[in-house]
Amino acid sequence: MSSVLVVGSVALDTVQTPMGTKNDMLGGSAVYFSLAASHFAPVRLVAVVGTDFPNDATNLLKSKQIDLTGLQIVAGNTFRWAGEYKGRMNEAITHDTQLNVFSSFQPVIPDSYADTEWVFLGNIDPVLQLQVLSQIKKPKWVALDTMNFWIQGALDKLLRVLKRIDMLIINEGELQLLTGKPDLRSGVKTLVSMGPKSVIIKRGEYGSVLYHSGTWFFTPGFPDTDLVDPTGAGDSFAGGVMGSLAKDGTVTSQTLRKAVINGSVIASYNITDFGPWKLAALTEKNITDRYDDFICITKVI
Amino acid sequence: MSSVLVVGSVALDTVQTPMGTKNDMLGGSAVYFSLAASHFAPVRLVAVVGTDFPNDATNLLKSKQIDLTGLQIVAGNTFRWAGEYKGRMNEAITHDTQLNVFSSFQPVIPDSYADTEWVFLGNIDPVLQLQVLSQIKKPKWVALDTMNFWIQGALDKLLRVLKRIDMLIINEGELQLLTGKPDLRSGVKTLVSMGPKSVIIKRGEYGSVLYHSGTWFFTPGFPDTDLVDPTGAGDSFAGGVMGSLAKDGTVTSQTLRKAVINGSVIASYNITDFGPWKLAALTEKNITDRYDDFICITKVI
Repeated sequence: MSSVLVVGSVALDTVQTPMGTKNDMLGGSAVYFSLAASHFAPVRLVAVVGTDFPNDATNLLKSKQIDLTGLQIVAGNTFRWAGEYKGRMNEAITHDTQLNVFSSFQPVIPDSYADTEWVFLGNIDPVLQLQVLSQIKKPKWVALDTMNFWIQGALDKLLRVLKRIDMLIINEGELQLLTGKPDLRSGVKTLVSMGPKSVIIKRGEYGSVLYHSGTWFFTPGFPDTDLVDPTGAGDSFAGGVMGSLAKDGTVTSQTLRKAVINGSVIASYNITDFGPWKLAALTEKNITDRYDDFICITKVI
Repeated sequence: MSSVLVVGSVALDTVQTPMGTKNDMLGGSAVYFSLAASHFAPVRLVAVVGTDFPNDATNLLKSKQIDLTGLQIVAGNTFRWAGEYKGRMNEAITHDTQLNVFSSFQPVIPDSYADTEWVFLGNIDPVLQLQVLSQIKKPKWVALDTMNFWIQGALDKLLRVLKRIDMLIINEGELQLLTGKPDLRSGVKTLVSMGPKSVIIKRGEYGSVLYHSGTWFFTPGFPDTDLVDPTGAGDSFAGGVMGSLAKDGTVTSQTLRKAVINGSVIASYNITDFGPWKLAALTEKNITDRYDDFICITKVI
């Protein structure tokens, strides 16, 4: 089966929510993405950690068909993030960021990854995203995440990456910042004119919107969940989307819609506990049951 | 076919939006509701106007199978509202309210209305909503709208009404105010414990949520519309919902879901022009075409 490649961060997170506090948990965009995608397809990870990175974290990822050939281990400490979610937990408040070995990260694609068809460029410097792309021989579908920091600080480079990708996955605030348009329709149509032929807008508790080939597809947020920690919601969503596409092996309106639901399914589980272990523990039945739930809460008949 | 009864306001509105300003337009919750519902079922209106109410407005309503036996014409001026929507037009800013004849409105149900099965209690004093209910012999399905003003100022009476209705249709802010719960699931479950067995939460551009018999149904906002004036969006939505139920003649999970889509269809047209005339001009094909569009933007396959 086709593999999914992800480049992003691997981190140790300290997270506080109204439900508790956890210190130095395994985290980072590439971790949440990988564990999510691994339910659907083999994953190839590209990231960097320090020599302090715990063995049990490495072992967990390896145990889930996640290829770590592209995980660089560098002298120094792993990227650390500390943050808090308050109230309805819509937004992270960053208390501390220690980039450590991540500050000089230069993604290198191992030869064994160069033929990867499904590529996810996680939220890193657009310059590095371009470097990754140049090392992939013939990608079939490239999706990209970004954030306000790059939209405001590296727009030129980001616009260059956008011309070379197939799908952008961002949230509503980023959509407005990147396009200057206040409403969904104008924003998405402006995005498409920037390069990506498909766009997914993440709307938090309101679910997500897919725009592809001139058509829309809306998925709600799953209502019957107990939100404990939203960390990794967007990355696990993206992992579910890309894993599902890789599993189907082709991009059509239908496989994209399935992928968006699979992403929503995975993210809806992820937020019910601290850290990424909930993702690691999901069974195939958990996933197909909730997929069916999503169908039930949106179909008319 | 079964009729729908609506009690609410009939008004003359002066509305300013980024798209323009219109003075003394036909408006009011009962007008938007009636014109919406009339596409699906005969409507019986209960409201009050002054002697200044224009003949062409009366004639428009009569031409749309809207029974005006219950429209009181009282010496004085019709209720007038002046307001403005700015930016993304999420919220109305009231500039002026002249209750006029509406301030002493006592709804009287004509004998010919007493057998109505489908009843919508528009956003008026809960005391009047109770008065209306007591005059209906054997309602099959009673839906209710309310607003912050009554939740904050007449909660005891509102809670009494809630025990006697089948379905509450309110927006997210009202849900939080009425239940004290920050999230959708807790809020809706609290509402159901207050009386109504079904609940519809209006979420503006994010669409709406139906909760019925322990199951959820989510409908998005329609993306391909040009928002000109949001006045009457909620009332035309409710009119589409109740008209659709009356047309089907029975309340099941399926007819409710159809009804929510029909409400969304009607509201999506209503907001594309000032005033309620867009509603009056809709064809059956407009409605069924957009109904199909709603199915297309939510179904997986």
